[in-house]
Amino acid sequence: MKIAIDGMGGDHSPKAVIEGCIEALKEYDDIEIYITGPEEKLRNEFDKFKYDKNRVQFINATEVISTNEHPVMALRKKKDSSLNKALKLVKEKKCDAIISAGSTGAFLAGCTLVVGRIKGIERPALAPIMPGKNNSFMVLDVGANVDCKPNYLLQFAIMGKIYFESVLGIKNPTVGLINIGSEEEKGNELTKATYKMLKESNLNFIGNVEPRDIPNGNVNVLVCDGFVGNTVLKMYEGVASTMFNIIKDEITSTFRAKLGAFLVKPVLKGIKQKFDYTEHGGAPFLGVDGVCIKAHGSSDSKAFKNAIRQAQIFSNNNIIKKIKLDIENINENEFK
Amino acid sequence: MKIAIDGMGGDHSPKAVIEGCIEALKEYDDIEIYITGPEEKLRNEFDKFKYDKNRVQFINATEVISTNEHPVMALRKKKDSSLNKALKLVKEKKCDAIISAGSTGAFLAGCTLVVGRIKGIERPALAPIMPGKNNSFMVLDVGANVDCKPNYLLQFAIMGKIYFESVLGIKNPTVGLINIGSEEEKGNELTKATYKMLKESNLNFIGNVEPRDIPNGNVNVLVCDGFVGNTVLKMYEGVASTMFNIIKDEITSTFRAKLGAFLVKPVLKGIKQKFDYTEHGGAPFLGVDGVCIKAHGSSDSKAFKNAIRQAQIFSNNNIIKKIKLDIENINENEFK
Repeated sequence: MKIAIDGMGGDHSPKAVIEGCIEALKEYDDIEIYITGPEEKLRNEFDKFKYDKNRVQFINATEVISTNEHPVMALRKKKDSSLNKALKLVKEKKCDAIISAGSTGAFLAGCTLVVGRIKGIERPALAPIMPGKNNSFMVLDVGANVDCKPNYLLQFAIMGKIYFESVLGIKNPTVGLINIGSEEEKGNELTKATYKMLKESNLNFIGNVEPRDIPNGNVNVLVCDGFVGNTVLKMYEGVASTMFNIIKDEITSTFRAKLGAFLVKPVLKGIKQKFDYTEHGGAPFLGVDGVCIKAHGSSDSKAFKNAIRQAQIFSNNNIIKKIKLDIENINENEFK
Repeated sequence: MKIAIDGMGGDHSPKAVIEGCIEALKEYDDIEIYITGPEEKLRNEFDKFKYDKNRVQFINATEVISTNEHPVMALRKKKDSSLNKALKLVKEKKCDAIISAGSTGAFLAGCTLVVGRIKGIERPALAPIMPGKNNSFMVLDVGANVDCKPNYLLQFAIMGKIYFESVLGIKNPTVGLINIGSEEEKGNELTKATYKMLKESNLNFIGNVEPRDIPNGNVNVLVCDGFVGNTVLKMYEGVASTMFNIIKDEITSTFRAKLGAFLVKPVLKGIKQKFDYTEHGGAPFLGVDGVCIKAHGSSDSKAFKNAIRQAQIFSNNNIIKKIKLDIENINENEFK
């Protein structure tokens, strides 16, 4: 498969992006890389490594969209940006997938406007897989749609179910609604109406999931509006990293603790790895008519390589085709 | 001061509630307890301890409102519940404060309906003080109002500022808006409109605070709608306790780690204490015309004693009077 890579997206681009590509080219035989950005700079970085030149195409792009810019304005203004060039490759069917670690807003807007929505999908959703105590789980949406309607959340659930089933191999995964109470009548207007729709659907809906229980990972697919989802994602990262920082500070405060710290270090490192976002690569943007993966802004080479692996799995599992079929069926049934 | 205590609220009532009262009576000379519930049962529990009988009044109540009941329906139906009786004591000015560890929904509805709102306050807010890495901070609202308007959030900020300044002694505390991006134009319709109002106010508004940064505790007073606030609160509790559980499980997995665990135990215990909700007692319900404290449902005796201390501080600092003055001034200025 052919993957369009935004060579200039992310905090550590193009270095980490290119190192990730090099590693992916070694591990996966069936991929070709189309990387966008200032050609000479990219070539020089690639030339630090050995790689099969037939499997890498350089597409020159002179501009970069930063995270501080207004997403849609920047996309319109910077026609020659690395992101726009990568999007074009997918739109023109020259590539099968796109990956960027750059501005989330610009990426989501670009995928929606340039690649386009799947017919029948109201709003695409950003859908990361997150590590839980017992299992990994998926949350959608985590920021593409801050103001949502109940029908959007139903579609999020359908898309999440298809992705989770296909990629993680769990048949008929459980679906939960993130809510501030466990009972049906709890929550705001959005969750109350969404609850009813999910209950009446064919999904394996298990009811409301309180944020307190999210980190256990006992429910496979969790839906909510993008504001709440982004809050969940960032609280997860924030609390976990704050706690590790506190433990790191305190654990070296006395001689006794220092000795203990040395002994428990491998265990703590293992736990930290368990909560490591880089393992899961990036977040698929579900509902657009193409394989679109948003890599974490702070992706290192390993995270970027995993995002490439994820694009491959996403593509190989015919997820977009399955979403199209399911959405078509639902819309047909509605008008019967 | 006279404090009305819902003797039957909380997971460990009446035992933990009464033990908390006993401890508070010992420590604080100026309090009298008015406890509601089945009189004989409460008396028997109290009689297990030595206490000054002149400082405890028993108010018989034969019913209990559970957390599974519809708050407003239960309040209306169970006139003789321990919560209703306690609320009545404050309404009739027989008591200066009320504390309950029972159903949050029933408590908030009861305080609003029976004790009543402060004139000019659109919606009262539940406002816990939470432990952060660098400082404690206040979040409001964490669940009383799931669907909010910008003006509510401005009032939350004003009330939070007054409470934080008075109780924690920090002059002109910083105020932040919980949002999913740091720039002014980020977020949903509510946060965008609220940002403008906060910027134009006299508050020490420092802008948006992303959930990732909340656990650091660098901003004193954080405002958001009750759905988001409840999500923040429960993610905080959930991630922290999940991580402690994982550490506990893993740290005893090898002999080496077990030895290390023994050595770092005091440090980990200290960190756990740092994140201990019981230290802060309960959450004040700001905007009602009385000192109303919601104690955590799982409060033990220490948490309940701290909730009593908090009611005392709340009352001694004339917070309600200060809120009335500030709200009056703002409303007057609006019509000038």
